[in-house]
This record gives sequence, C-alpha cells and structure tokens, in this order.
Amino acid sequence: MATVSLLGDDETGPEARAVFDEIRALRGTDYVNNFWRALAHDPATLRATWDRLKAVMAPGALDPLVKEMLYVAVSVTNGCDYCIHSHTAAARAKGMTPEMYGELLAVIGMAAQTNQLVTAMKVPVDGMFDAGAGQG
Amino acid sequence: MATVSLLGDDETGPEARAVFDEIRALRGTDYVNNFWRALAHDPATLRATWDRLKAVMAPGALDPLVKEMLYVAVSVTNGCDYCIHSHTAAARAKGMTPEMYGELLAVIGMAAQTNQLVTAMKVPVDGMFDAGAGQG
Amino acid sequence: MATVSLLGDDETGPEARAVFDEIRALRGTDYVNNFWRALAHDPATLRATWDRLKAVMAPGALDPLVKEMLYVAVSVTNGCDYCIHSHTAAARAKGMTPEMYGELLAVIGMAAQTNQLVTAMKVPVDGMFDAGAGQG
Amino acid sequence: MATVSLLGDDETGPEARAVFDEIRALRGTDYVNNFWRALAHDPATLRATWDRLKAVMAPGALDPLVKEMLYVAVSVTNGCDYCIHSHTAAARAKGMTPEMYGELLAVIGMAAQTNQLVTAMKVPVDGMFDAGAGQG
Amino acid sequence: MATVSLLGDDETGPEARAVFDEIRALRGTDYVNNFWRALAHDPATLRATWDRLKAVMAPGALDPLVKEMLYVAVSVTNGCDYCIHSHTAAARAKGMTPEMYGELLAVIGMAAQTNQLVTAMKVPVDGMFDAGAGQG
Amino acid sequence: MATVSLLGDDETGPEARAVFDEIRALRGTDYVNNFWRALAHDPATLRATWDRLKAVMAPGALDPLVKEMLYVAVSVTNGCDYCIHSHTAAARAKGMTPEMYGELLAVIGMAAQTNQLVTAMKVPVDGMFDAGAGQG
Repeated sequence: MATVSLLGDDETGPEARAVFDEIRALRGTDYVNNFWRALAHDPATLRATWDRLKAVMAPGALDPLVKEMLYVAVSVTNGCDYCIHSHTAAARAKGMTPEMYGELLAVIGMAAQTNQLVTAMKVPVDGMFDAGAGQG
Repeated sequence: MATVSLLGDDETGPEARAVFDEIRALRGTDYVNNFWRALAHDPATLRATWDRLKAVMAPGALDPLVKEMLYVAVSVTNGCDYCIHSHTAAARAKGMTPEMYGELLAVIGMAAQTNQLVTAMKVPVDGMFDAGAGQG
Repeated sequence: MATVSLLGDDETGPEARAVFDEIRALRGTDYVNNFWRALAHDPATLRATWDRLKAVMAPGALDPLVKEMLYVAVSVTNGCDYCIHSHTAAARAKGMTPEMYGELLAVIGMAAQTNQLVTAMKVPVDGMFDAGAGQG
Repeated sequence: MATVSLLGDDETGPEARAVFDEIRALRGTDYVNNFWRALAHDPATLRATWDRLKAVMAPGALDPLVKEMLYVAVSVTNGCDYCIHSHTAAARAKGMTPEMYGELLAVIGMAAQTNQLVTAMKVPVDGMFDAGAGQG
Repeated sequence: MATVSLLGDDETGPEARAVFDEIRALRGTDYVNNFWRALAHDPATLRATWDRLKAVMAPGALDPLVKEMLYVAVSVTNGCDYCIHSHTAAARAKGMTPEMYGELLAVIGMAAQTNQLVTAMKVPVDGMFDAGAGQG
Repeated sequence: MATVSLLGDDETGPEARAVFDEIRALRGTDYVNNFWRALAHDPATLRATWDRLKAVMAPGALDPLVKEMLYVAVSVTNGCDYCIHSHTAAARAKGMTPEMYGELLAVIGMAAQTNQLVTAMKVPVDGMFDAGAGQG
C-alpha cells in the first residue's frame, strides 16, 4: 500500500517516459523499478533525482561497489526498507560477496553502538581531530 | 561539558589501563582519545567495545579505508559529532583524498534524499530484489 | 501484528469511550481509526493525546492543511509508516493537490540531503542567523 | 570546528565562484553563508545542490514560507543544528510571526510524540487510508 | 545561541509565570531551567507540556528513577544534547549510581547495534512474539 | 522478505551451532528466533553479539525487566520493528504489566516530544547540569 499509484509507461507524459528510457538504457534491462514509477507523478523531481543519482553513483575516486555499500549503510541507519532491499541487491549485482556483506553489517552495527555511547556521554572532540580541516 | 569525567591514566584500574596500552600499541602513538577515557568508567564495556572494534575494523574482505568511510556514513546519519570528527580524521589518515571525501559526502546526501522520498510514498519493494535472499 | 489489541467500543471503559465519541463528533464520521483503539488500553494517555492533538491541529496562525503537511514531514523523517499514511490521507482530505504533494516531497527530500551534508562537514553556524533570537 | 575549511571567494575556482555569484544575486546580499563555502570544495555537488535547492524552494503550489517551515520541521527531526538556525532565520525573514513559530513547534512536538506511540504499538494501517493512492 | 530568548520571570505573562511557580514548588528550588524559559514564549504549549510531563514522570507502576533512565535512553537515541544532560542529572539526583549508569549505557549501545543489524537484514518477526498482543 | 536466508540448524557450521545451543540452554527452550538464524551467516558477528548481549542483559545494578524496557525504548526510537516485537514480548515474559507498559509508552512519547521542542529552539544547557560530571 503506497501513498501514490505506480505509473505504467503509458500513464506517464514524455518527460517521465524519457527518464524511464534512460534508466533502461543505462542498466541494460527493460525493468523500471517501483521507486521511479512512484516518483513519475512529479516529472521535475523524477528528472532531478535520476540525473543526480546517475552522476553520484558513477565510477569516480570511489568505485561503484563501495558507493553501493555506503548507500546501504545510510539506508539502514535511516531505516528505509525499500532502499535497503534495492541497494543490497545492487551491491550484490556489483560483486559484493557474503564475506563483504558480513563485514559491512559488522561496521554498521559497531558504528551505531559507539555513536550512541559517545552521544550519551557527550564526549568532547579531541583537538587533534581538527587537523583534518586543513586537508579540506 | 561531558556527563562523565575523562579519566587520566592514573585514575583507571588495571583493566582499563590494559586497554589503553593496547590502543597505544596498535596505533603506534601515546595518545588515547577522549572516547576511551570516558568509557573507562565502565571497564567491562571499555574492554568489550575495544575488542570488537579492533576485530571489526581490521583488514578483511573490505579494506580499512572503506570501513572508515562506512563508519563516517553511519555516524553522519546518526548525527554523532564526535564520531564524525574522529572517523573523518581516521579516514584521511588511511588515505582518503579530497576527491574521495567529496564523493563520500555526495553518496550520503543522495541516499538521505531518496530514503525520504521512498519512505514518504511507501513504495512497495519490487519482487526482483528478493532474489538476493538466495545469495545469503 | 500489533503489540496490543485494537479495542472495540464495548471493550473500553467510560473514559476511553468518551474520547471515541469526541473523535466521532469532531470528524463527523462514525469511524474511529486504529491508533485510538490501540491507545485506549491506557485511558489517561488516550485523553491527554487527543486533547492536545485537537488543540494543536486546530485552525490558528497556521491553517490546518499546512499543519497536516508539517505532520507528514515529521512522520516521514521519523519513518512512521502509520502516521505517513494517516496524515497524507488527512492532508488530501483538507485540500492537498497532487502539485502540493509533489512540492512537499521535494522539500522533504532536499532538506534531508542538505541536513546530512551540513552534519557531515560540521559547518559552523553563521553569526548572522543569531539575529533571530531577538525576534522570540 | 568543521571537517573542511570555509573557502573564501579567492580560494575557489570559477565553477564555485559562479554559484556564489548566483546566491548573491538571488538573495540581494553580498553575504554567502558557511554551508556554501564548505560545499565549495566539491564544485559539482555545490552546483547540483544550489540548482536543485533554488528550484525546490521557489514559489509554486506551496508558498515559500510554508516551504521554509517544512524545512525547519525536517531539520529539527534530523537534529541538524546548522539547518535549524539557518531555516528558522529564513522563515522569519519571509514573515513567520512568533504565533506561527509557536504553532510550528507544537506540531513538530506532537507529531514526534504520536509517531513514537504508533511505532511502539505497531498499529496496523487502516484500510481507509489507502483511498489516497487513487489520488496520485 | 538559541532560536528564541530565555524569558526572565518579569518578561512572562501570568500563565507562564504560574507554570514557573508550579515548577519551583514541585521541585523545591527557585531555579527554573532554560527549557521552560524558552518554551514560555508560547504559554499554551508551556502549560500543556508541563502538565503532561508532571503526570507522566510521577511515581506509578514504574518508579521515577526508571522513568528518568528511559528518558535518557530516548534522548540519546534522538541525539538531544540538552535532554541528555538534564535527564542524566535528574537520574543521578534520584539515585542512579555509576554502576547503574554504566549498565544503562551498555543497554543503549547494545540495542542500537542489534537494531541496525536486524534492520539491515530485514529479519521477519517470529510468529511467537505475536502472543503478546493478547496481553494488551 | 529478508536480505538473507534464515539458517536451519543443519545449515550452520559448528561455531554458529554452538551459539544456538547456548541460546537454547540459557532460555530453556528449543526455539531459536529469527535474528540469530539470520546472523548465523557470519559466525564471528553471531558469537560477538550473543556474548555481549548475554553479559549486558544479565542481572546487575539494574534488573532484567528494566533493561528490557530500556531496550524497547531505544528500539522504538530507532524504529526497529523486529526489536520492538521481540523485546516487548521479552519484557512481558519478565513481568511487565499492562500498567507498566502504559507508563513505558507514555515516557517514550513524552521524551520524543520534548526532545524535538528543545532541539528546535536550540536551548543552551544550564550550567547546573554540569555538576553531574563530577559524579562520573
């Protein structure tokens, strides 16, 4: 049960349809997943989100698999079920092995734990960590 | 202003002191950062946290720099100031370049945005993402 | 699957029943939604929540539709599925058009993204923003 | 203490400088606030963020003041100090009165409370809320 | 730097002043802490918040110290610095020992960790946990 | 639909099986709940999580029921459905009455509300709360 319907290809206008076609072309599959079909109710947001996502997740200084795992880490921490499923699947498609997945989960869990311990005690930041600012 | 004092070496008992010494030895520095000095009020939690952190962050299927960036991603999403500073500094110490940092931030921001869009519309998970379960 | 049963009218005592009746009267419908039926196990919390909600959501300096959209924004950010559904439906009942909904989602997504970018970099607050304090 | 330096005008390249100039022109002030100066380390993210923010916050089906209050609601829920300050100041500049601010806070607080009550009891979504889906 | 000024006794109207007086009487101190002085800009929210807080935190089936520790747990998880400080201080004033505090932190950290592991793997709820519903 | 399969006893290696047996022995039941069966894909994380959980939740300065209620409070605030169900059931098994549950929910809701109000106004921490630091 979603708050909006999932738009089929023939229920969208040309702007949304163009994004669907780019998704298909880039991914080499005819399948357009539900997120985009829901977002298609607002073609401007659909376009902006797709363009930015494509740029952000492209190979760069970080490789695409690392980016997918970062995406999973954020999605888990935000508790976004859909994103956890879609990006875990994407990470596996890009080569994440069970061992890598196990380590990804272990880091996420560990970080969540120490985040809360630090927050609970309001630990002051060590001056030495400030050195990073100069490396901007 | 913390909720507990930061314990100096001579204010801790032997269990906490042993952890401090392991931190120094592993990191090759005499400096023990504030998190551990705050946690030292509870030697059992200090020991358990250090032992697990050491194991989780060690080289494995994922390299230590990737793990640090995942740690930053979770810490940012949880809004833990101390952890953001300490793990951003650690990632830089392990080789994160400004370009890598820029891409890390871009993924974190993008994921936060799509997490919220998906959550707002309660988009149903595509059946195809379930294929991942078999790869456990 | 809830952690408590949803109480029918004849399973509640007079305090809870009185709240149910007020909900029906104010909304002009016989339907009492599940949230109140779950909360009815604790009549004091039911009463306090209903009284405060009624006051907070009443027309005032902000109109009820704006308040519903604010409610949706908070509920999305907190990841509360039930509240997202109930308040999105309420906003539509109060006149939220598809265009307004699209803009609401766009703001929620944008804010989530810049929140994380700012938090990641620990950007110091500009002194000029403090001028607001004087406007109490 | 930020994780990156705040770039002055003469420390940026032409892409970032162009964004700074657009910010100045649109806002009618010479002041460029710290968020943009921090983000300027990554000109592509600076450009994408500014372009999208400008579009999202422009007058549309929702007026700019409502959008600023929605931004505050999300920023409070995400606990982003900088964003709370900057968008509260912006909402005031766009006409938010003390009465409106009081109601904004009341809705944010109320939503947070009922979000948690509902989440704690895992209240099932009423079928009637699903009617909204047809309104896309 | 707050978004509102902290109101002194002679800057408030009679409704807010009455709440200040009740706070003083109940706590047996002349000191009214900053939260109430900030909230006093909106006397209706001040009154509703104080009345409900007083009722919720009073001795009942749970003792006041347990309630304070629960308050700390929620405040840490929400990352509310002010609330962490004020409720940690209140818990200590009500008898929380260093040993109890250590265990409180350990539970908070452990829960945060397993919350994230479960969320990451989207573990289905065991049918046996549903038995609780009958105990409403 | 999980991201990993739930491992049956004969699908695990000896390390995971040993943890399953300890869970059975400590709890006096043959049932091993889904969380552990999902976590068993990574025997090292399974072992570390179980050992730490057992130590943290054991009777100490806080009694086990209080610890379960703290666990529920954190899990609700993090929005972890599975954990809300499993720890609410565990709290009931340890003696949580409907009255205690009602008060638990009331505190969680109240804290969430005041957390957001304080965060929205960026209320500065009273100096007097700092006295707690000396009690470490």
